[in-house]
Amino acid sequence: MGLTIGVDIGGTKIAAGVVDEEGTILDTHKVPTPPTAEGIVDAICAAVSEAGKGHDIEAVGIGAAGYVDDKRATVLFAPNIQWRHEPLKDKVEQRVGLPVVVENDANAAAWGEYKFGAGKGHEDVICITLGTGLGGGIIIGNKLRRGRFGVAAEFGHIRVVPDGLLCGCGSQGCWEQYASGRALVRYAKQRAHATPENATILLGLGDGTPAGIEGKHISEAARQGCPVAVDSFRELARWAGAGLADLASLFDPSAFIVGGGVSDEGELVLGPIRKSFRRWLIGGQWRPHAQVLAAQLGGEAGLVGAADLARQG
Amino acid sequence: MGLTIGVDIGGTKIAAGVVDEEGTILDTHKVPTPPTAEGIVDAICAAVSEAGKGHDIEAVGIGAAGYVDDKRATVLFAPNIQWRHEPLKDKVEQRVGLPVVVENDANAAAWGEYKFGAGKGHEDVICITLGTGLGGGIIIGNKLRRGRFGVAAEFGHIRVVPDGLLCGCGSQGCWEQYASGRALVRYAKQRAHATPENATILLGLGDGTPAGIEGKHISEAARQGCPVAVDSFRELARWAGAGLADLASLFDPSAFIVGGGVSDEGELVLGPIRKSFRRWLIGGQWRPHAQVLAAQLGGEAGLVGAADLARQG
Amino acid sequence: MGLTIGVDIGGTKIAAGVVDEEGTILDTHKVPTPPTAEGIVDAICAAVSEAGKGHDIEAVGIGAAGYVDDKRATVLFAPNIQWRHEPLKDKVEQRVGLPVVVENDANAAAWGEYKFGAGKGHEDVICITLGTGLGGGIIIGNKLRRGRFGVAAEFGHIRVVPDGLLCGCGSQGCWEQYASGRALVRYAKQRAHATPENATILLGLGDGTPAGIEGKHISEAARQGCPVAVDSFRELARWAGAGLADLASLFDPSAFIVGGGVSDEGELVLGPIRKSFRRWLIGGQWRPHAQVLAAQLGGEAGLVGAADLARQG
Amino acid sequence: MGLTIGVDIGGTKIAAGVVDEEGTILDTHKVPTPPTAEGIVDAICAAVSEAGKGHDIEAVGIGAAGYVDDKRATVLFAPNIQWRHEPLKDKVEQRVGLPVVVENDANAAAWGEYKFGAGKGHEDVICITLGTGLGGGIIIGNKLRRGRFGVAAEFGHIRVVPDGLLCGCGSQGCWEQYASGRALVRYAKQRAHATPENATILLGLGDGTPAGIEGKHISEAARQGCPVAVDSFRELARWAGAGLADLASLFDPSAFIVGGGVSDEGELVLGPIRKSFRRWLIGGQWRPHAQVLAAQLGGEAGLVGAADLARQG
Repeated sequence: MGLTIGVDIGGTKIAAGVVDEEGTILDTHKVPTPPTAEGIVDAICAAVSEAGKGHDIEAVGIGAAGYVDDKRATVLFAPNIQWRHEPLKDKVEQRVGLPVVVENDANAAAWGEYKFGAGKGHEDVICITLGTGLGGGIIIGNKLRRGRFGVAAEFGHIRVVPDGLLCGCGSQGCWEQYASGRALVRYAKQRAHATPENATILLGLGDGTPAGIEGKHISEAARQGCPVAVDSFRELARWAGAGLADLASLFDPSAFIVGGGVSDEGELVLGPIRKSFRRWLIGGQWRPHAQVLAAQLGGEAGLVGAADLARQG
Repeated sequence: MGLTIGVDIGGTKIAAGVVDEEGTILDTHKVPTPPTAEGIVDAICAAVSEAGKGHDIEAVGIGAAGYVDDKRATVLFAPNIQWRHEPLKDKVEQRVGLPVVVENDANAAAWGEYKFGAGKGHEDVICITLGTGLGGGIIIGNKLRRGRFGVAAEFGHIRVVPDGLLCGCGSQGCWEQYASGRALVRYAKQRAHATPENATILLGLGDGTPAGIEGKHISEAARQGCPVAVDSFRELARWAGAGLADLASLFDPSAFIVGGGVSDEGELVLGPIRKSFRRWLIGGQWRPHAQVLAAQLGGEAGLVGAADLARQG
Repeated sequence: MGLTIGVDIGGTKIAAGVVDEEGTILDTHKVPTPPTAEGIVDAICAAVSEAGKGHDIEAVGIGAAGYVDDKRATVLFAPNIQWRHEPLKDKVEQRVGLPVVVENDANAAAWGEYKFGAGKGHEDVICITLGTGLGGGIIIGNKLRRGRFGVAAEFGHIRVVPDGLLCGCGSQGCWEQYASGRALVRYAKQRAHATPENATILLGLGDGTPAGIEGKHISEAARQGCPVAVDSFRELARWAGAGLADLASLFDPSAFIVGGGVSDEGELVLGPIRKSFRRWLIGGQWRPHAQVLAAQLGGEAGLVGAADLARQG
Repeated sequence: MGLTIGVDIGGTKIAAGVVDEEGTILDTHKVPTPPTAEGIVDAICAAVSEAGKGHDIEAVGIGAAGYVDDKRATVLFAPNIQWRHEPLKDKVEQRVGLPVVVENDANAAAWGEYKFGAGKGHEDVICITLGTGLGGGIIIGNKLRRGRFGVAAEFGHIRVVPDGLLCGCGSQGCWEQYASGRALVRYAKQRAHATPENATILLGLGDGTPAGIEGKHISEAARQGCPVAVDSFRELARWAGAGLADLASLFDPSAFIVGGGVSDEGELVLGPIRKSFRRWLIGGQWRPHAQVLAAQLGGEAGLVGAADLARQG
């Protein structure tokens, strides 16, 4: 089989990419993300048409944040777009004249990493994405597992602290409140506020105030050895690793793949996560341990994964 | 295919049962559980031979507590028997002259319920067993999912309270410390101690002291409306339901099956669990809800499930 | 000694009241609360002057939210007014020509209740105020205990949930996030959202949506038996009572006085608090139990208390 | 006034010491601790008589673990001795012919430190003792504050983790389960079990197994830089400092004094505690900070404090 298009819907850009069977992106077209729900559908169609020009495209895969139904056709709910029971597959198929598959974006990214990235050779892989929030995907027996109704693998919303932090989902204590880019920034702000003398490097990279701390400052400061930045990564890793240990108790995969912006820091964050994972893994001396691997595809995992899922129909 | 034998290893009895393709137990033989690891192997073989007399048996399935490896051959670790990397499949095969499959007992029970009990007709089922501890099994796409190394579905040991109660596994805050028969008894004892005036029925069923409270007293007292007993079941249900909501975020099954001794109380405990599940389910208004069903096979689920798994080879 | 004036600084009104030695308010004058920090000082002086007309006033006591220093002169920090190291005593003394004492408003209210309200006859009393937030005051040996630097009795900010809810103070898991009017509304909204069928009475009192629920609706609905409203009060009481048990371990008073808007509901909330207090009190069978009493002075406790503290100089 | 005797009841020895007005111990007599409740009373009397020989003794102060009533006469409950409503004052007075004061042992130690140790010059001091458990005492306005019924300052039993670790008191999540010598050993065992490669120094000091780790090994290993030992102290300090921050919110003292065996390690443990205290102190930028001081009297604080409390009658 030939080429497919994967679509990634970002907060500022919608990207459509032509992808071959080896997961190579041959061509990409990006358009700005419109503000309205219907405008985004238009933009997806436009980006697909444009990217596909001059290619023989067989199908389109769209990665969308939120709940996608069991038929991979309807977005039941999207957190950032006013899509509620949105028949995205039908709309786009009618307009672009190609078979369309809609998939949760974190599922798509997990599939991309499993097929073409860090997961190659594994049959059972759990992928977590530490971005602004925490998402992920489940591959068991070489298949993406979407749940009966399409909404499995919502890792970010398991409850890790009873009566814990409020989450955008309306619940409390969700894992993504403790292990995500947003959590990392909160850790750094709190620590810089309480002990500014240990945060001079970190504060110096921003506007000098705890409130002005951004994620990129924390990474840079940690590389320079800033105690507050290092400790913030360690706190993130504490929660990430403990959660992976829970996922090991549940899924027992051969590998975890850690992706998302936070994981771009590589061993700075993966080392502590592995340590915390081992600390909390149940029965660690009696069982083979899953590997904890860094994602390899970066921000393209979702697009590539969506394209490949479309290929499989 | 014909008849198989399922084996259930209990704390006091080892039961071997001849089971047909419909999950009906045709014949059972029980022997006392010996105290030594090797004695238990002997007893299993004896029970199998005895139960199989006069039947044309094709295979044997053994349900064992603990970690069973990916080949369903070796018990890596058993919590109550001194089995460490015990080659149980080989030992029993040599002695009984039949193909043997070893499976984690909670996995076997989950399979039994999926195939012949409450799970009939579902393709994606999560089974939890509220016994002394909390175990369970995962069926996705009509297959038992054992993990890459055989030790998936250890539900009882996901961490639901950071820095929480010590668990026999060495970790802290494990789910089974909050949702299990043992937890129920602790809840009742604590409440009866603090407010004995609300526990008169409950205390009257035992020796009159909080220390003397047993599980059966709590069930009976709850049926009689004893406030402390009712409140203890409610506390159990709070934790059980919240955990099921986490499992829904992860697995998104079409049904949960709740088994084990605690679930014998039926709606007394299932009603509150369903309520708590709904309370904590993420995105409940946007997604189909999994059913929460009572197990139907009672204490025979493990034996029947093990027998059926052996049939499948 | 004669008359003094107590001042209460509310969000919408500043009240100055002439109070006699028995704690009776003889005369009150209220002015709207200005928007600026300096304007509030002006308004306090104006209200005091006006209220004092025709009375022989000996001193003025001002209850102010926030940290008041050990000399009862300077507001170190106020949460809702831009006072930072504000020399309130000096400013007001110069303008009204009377001795002024500044006190934390919750301390003042505690003193009022101790002296003229529910605390009469007790030497050691802990007062908690369940208003929008949670404040309180400490009386030991018939004296208000303000701490070495004036900032004791910040009950609302002890940490009851590690890694818990964010608090306006910048910390996490503070008691007032779980036991306060604001917490009560959150409990009701969450429950009404998850199980609207149990919240029909409650939702009917507002605009029909969980978001529209206000504190007064919850009280009214609870009186009508609405399950979600009753359960929300129970949750509040769980946390309030557990916290009082902690305070009993620390202070061992003869009485707790529970005031603030939430406590206006009387036994609806005090009954469950007492039950929870007993549930969590350490060593309850070996020690005398503190009483848990309803406050008697309502919203005037702070004004009366501040006036009396001024009398004592 | 002249000399008094202080009595310290330890698990293996009962010590009676003659103490002068400067808190100097002039003479000590020790006897083994008998196994029975009545035997301990006998031993106290014997030790007092023996120690007092040749001295002009005016009174006796006894520090006893457990609840001591408001008259400082009766031990309401002792955790390790079968004393229940034990009239210790009367019994000892009758036998030794001197006025006797009974005090909670942690209160006595707090008083000793306040009067003759690290607390000199402070009027408002909170003392915590990190021994096997966690105890403490409250000095406000230069007086020991015992609560209305004598059982204040039970710091070890405030709840810092809802649904947390079981405590000997019957409750869950008590502070002493997270900040005490026993907690330190648990931290080290858990970490050595999970990551033995980081515990080689620590394991080498004992029998080579996590189970064989003792408190003294952890101190020695931490001094040698063993990662698991250092991390165990850090974990202890995390909980100790966070609890001190809570006590600062409540009591606002000018100093905390940290005593007990754990604190013998000096800056190894005090440094991290101070850091954690600052991390969690509410409103730290707007208020004067309490000092966190090391106790100075070591194991003699209780005896000296009891003697001095007896002097005051």
